[in-house]
Amino acid sequence: MFSLSSLNRRDWLTVCGAALAAGAATGAVGSLAGCATAQVRGTGDLGVVIGRANGTVTLVDTTTRTALGVVGGLGDLSHASVVFSRDGLFAYVFGRDGGLTRINLLTCSITHRVMQAGNSIGGAISDDGTLVAAQNYTPGGIKVFDARTLELLADVPASYASADGQEQRSRVVGLVDLPGRRFAYSLFDADAIWITDCSDIQNPKTQKFEHVGHQPYDGLVTPDGHYYIAGLFGEDGMALIDLWAEPLSVRRILDGYGKGEQKLPVYKMPHLRGWAVAGRHAWLPAVGQHEVLVADTETWRLAGRIPVAGQPVFVIARPDAPQVWVSFAVPDYGHVQVIDTQSQRVIKTLEPGHAVLHMEFTPRGEAVWISCRDDDRVRVIDTRNFQTLASIPVPAPSGVFFTARATRIGF
Amino acid sequence: MFSLSSLNRRDWLTVCGAALAAGAATGAVGSLAGCATAQVRGTGDLGVVIGRANGTVTLVDTTTRTALGVVGGLGDLSHASVVFSRDGLFAYVFGRDGGLTRINLLTCSITHRVMQAGNSIGGAISDDGTLVAAQNYTPGGIKVFDARTLELLADVPASYASADGQEQRSRVVGLVDLPGRRFAYSLFDADAIWITDCSDIQNPKTQKFEHVGHQPYDGLVTPDGHYYIAGLFGEDGMALIDLWAEPLSVRRILDGYGKGEQKLPVYKMPHLRGWAVAGRHAWLPAVGQHEVLVADTETWRLAGRIPVAGQPVFVIARPDAPQVWVSFAVPDYGHVQVIDTQSQRVIKTLEPGHAVLHMEFTPRGEAVWISCRDDDRVRVIDTRNFQTLASIPVPAPSGVFFTARATRIGF
Repeated sequence: MFSLSSLNRRDWLTVCGAALAAGAATGAVGSLAGCATAQVRGTGDLGVVIGRANGTVTLVDTTTRTALGVVGGLGDLSHASVVFSRDGLFAYVFGRDGGLTRINLLTCSITHRVMQAGNSIGGAISDDGTLVAAQNYTPGGIKVFDARTLELLADVPASYASADGQEQRSRVVGLVDLPGRRFAYSLFDADAIWITDCSDIQNPKTQKFEHVGHQPYDGLVTPDGHYYIAGLFGEDGMALIDLWAEPLSVRRILDGYGKGEQKLPVYKMPHLRGWAVAGRHAWLPAVGQHEVLVADTETWRLAGRIPVAGQPVFVIARPDAPQVWVSFAVPDYGHVQVIDTQSQRVIKTLEPGHAVLHMEFTPRGEAVWISCRDDDRVRVIDTRNFQTLASIPVPAPSGVFFTARATRIGF
Repeated sequence: MFSLSSLNRRDWLTVCGAALAAGAATGAVGSLAGCATAQVRGTGDLGVVIGRANGTVTLVDTTTRTALGVVGGLGDLSHASVVFSRDGLFAYVFGRDGGLTRINLLTCSITHRVMQAGNSIGGAISDDGTLVAAQNYTPGGIKVFDARTLELLADVPASYASADGQEQRSRVVGLVDLPGRRFAYSLFDADAIWITDCSDIQNPKTQKFEHVGHQPYDGLVTPDGHYYIAGLFGEDGMALIDLWAEPLSVRRILDGYGKGEQKLPVYKMPHLRGWAVAGRHAWLPAVGQHEVLVADTETWRLAGRIPVAGQPVFVIARPDAPQVWVSFAVPDYGHVQVIDTQSQRVIKTLEPGHAVLHMEFTPRGEAVWISCRDDDRVRVIDTRNFQTLASIPVPAPSGVFFTARATRIGF
């Protein structure tokens, strides 16, 4: 938990403390502590930090490395994620409780909010910026919304026949945008990957791949849109679709990468959207192991294993150097490790704070923002010398998301 | 030349025709036809189109696919190029006459303008957005400016000893930003590549590589910051620096790729910043040949040659598909060809208009904007079905630049 007294007010331009506290208590919907006025400014250097404990989003500026304002009333933001409109003006926040909220970053206010499911796990935005899709656990499926109004445009239940022949609905994970107003996602309970083409949103078409492997738990698309990959929780290995090879088919890769090793209890599922592609290699968190795996993206064979300080959660390529940065599950989440991708060795171990939950690089990689939940701080680190450039107070910060994501496939 | 009557006024929100014409005639500095008012809006979907003939820049919106306004008085914009501030609010326009102009995209106005050289060929912006560098022919060298004020911070003359021992100054080409507030560039007359480290701008340090090959004419850095490559005009082959291998050294690659073939007159030098890296291959325009070359980025050996419709000028990877798009020098510049990178074959030949000078993909690749100079039009094409989405009147358009470049290395 955080206390308002822990906030350094000089770092906040427009925080309205009383309203923030009241909003957090009541869960009221609306802008609790907006910017003083709407600003004429660029949006390319803006971002948001999820305040996991109190349902707030803190708006940040990556040039001045400061907080600009707070928007509250967003409900349960554990495991929240964010996508951005293609102009960088709006953030779409997917809450765990099924809340989908559109925030105007320049007025620091909520423009639209819908409760679209009972239990949700994130979302994506179409390549052209017109469609926002949510992936839901309850009821299992995806829903697609008009990005301007949050009007529901399509509802695709993740229905499947269970072993006893009953129709069930699967939890959906690993939702990503694909080129051509398409979305790919995985059905955890149905061992399936689906691709829904929303190019004609009145008539979405879904292509279904079954028996892809047991319990796909998250997925990613490579930055060039070439491969969709789902990690498997129920068995060793991963499921891959080459999106450039028609007709599409699923292929198993990295089979048995952990076979024969003693399984550790899994403290936190790795996040695959954080997977890194650096050069011809993909860098992947091994589920339950203290290892980062290296896969050759041409053969999709294992090309290396790197021992690290704990169970990896995020494995992220630094944009401007041959490095991947790794964060960890409890109890090792006080550390961040830096792997040199050329030598495949850990070259630096940082202790940026307590309970590191997320990392986000600036678009060109000169800095990285690291959420330290139990410090109520986001630490901004110079990637060249590992010095701290800023330490920004945010109550129980988790995910950090910058508007440059709007320019990337799969973010 | 264009006439104002050719402008479709419905497509223009704020064009002030009389002021535009007056400004073009007098070359007056200032905002000739700004936006009605400064706007509170996102900048992630903005861009500019160079009006080569009349010294104007047209501001465009890639979501609505419309022109938003015009800024004039920018001098000689033949071969002009543009970089953007990291917030996407400001465009820095490098004119051929040495003019460097900072434009506020939301007020459609010039905030700063300096005449910094007599003959200039473009520029770059540092990874952290604080420094703007210009590459100059006359006087030969680079100059580095404060991105906020255009105050001159560093002047690096491209001095070298010519064959007769006299000190000369070389024309500078191929300037790109490297991580760590560094700039790499090539000295056309000195057969050299220099890297200037501006991390301490009071004391810039330049590392010099000599005898890199005859007449480097342009350069690029790969999107991950791994390689700097200079094309050579005076001989077959290219010069490469692996920026991740200390100490840095220059290596010759693709030696003799055109050897033995009949040389054609070179109608226009290819632009190397348009070079495409797609998967493990780089796609390069062959100087003076009707060919696109394919180089393996691991071995830097030639991996293919693709016959095309003319001398390639821009060879650009589509961000979301296995394609490179190619534009051509006169007399073949009425065509654009699309190469499938998997089959290495031309799969489509477009005729988007007369005198195609440039192409720019939207950040996620769903559309491409093509300048058709002699039509006074920029054509916006859907990359999936090659249909025209919009046709925007711009007088004698040349370069098209979108703000997403601010998030990329080497743009």
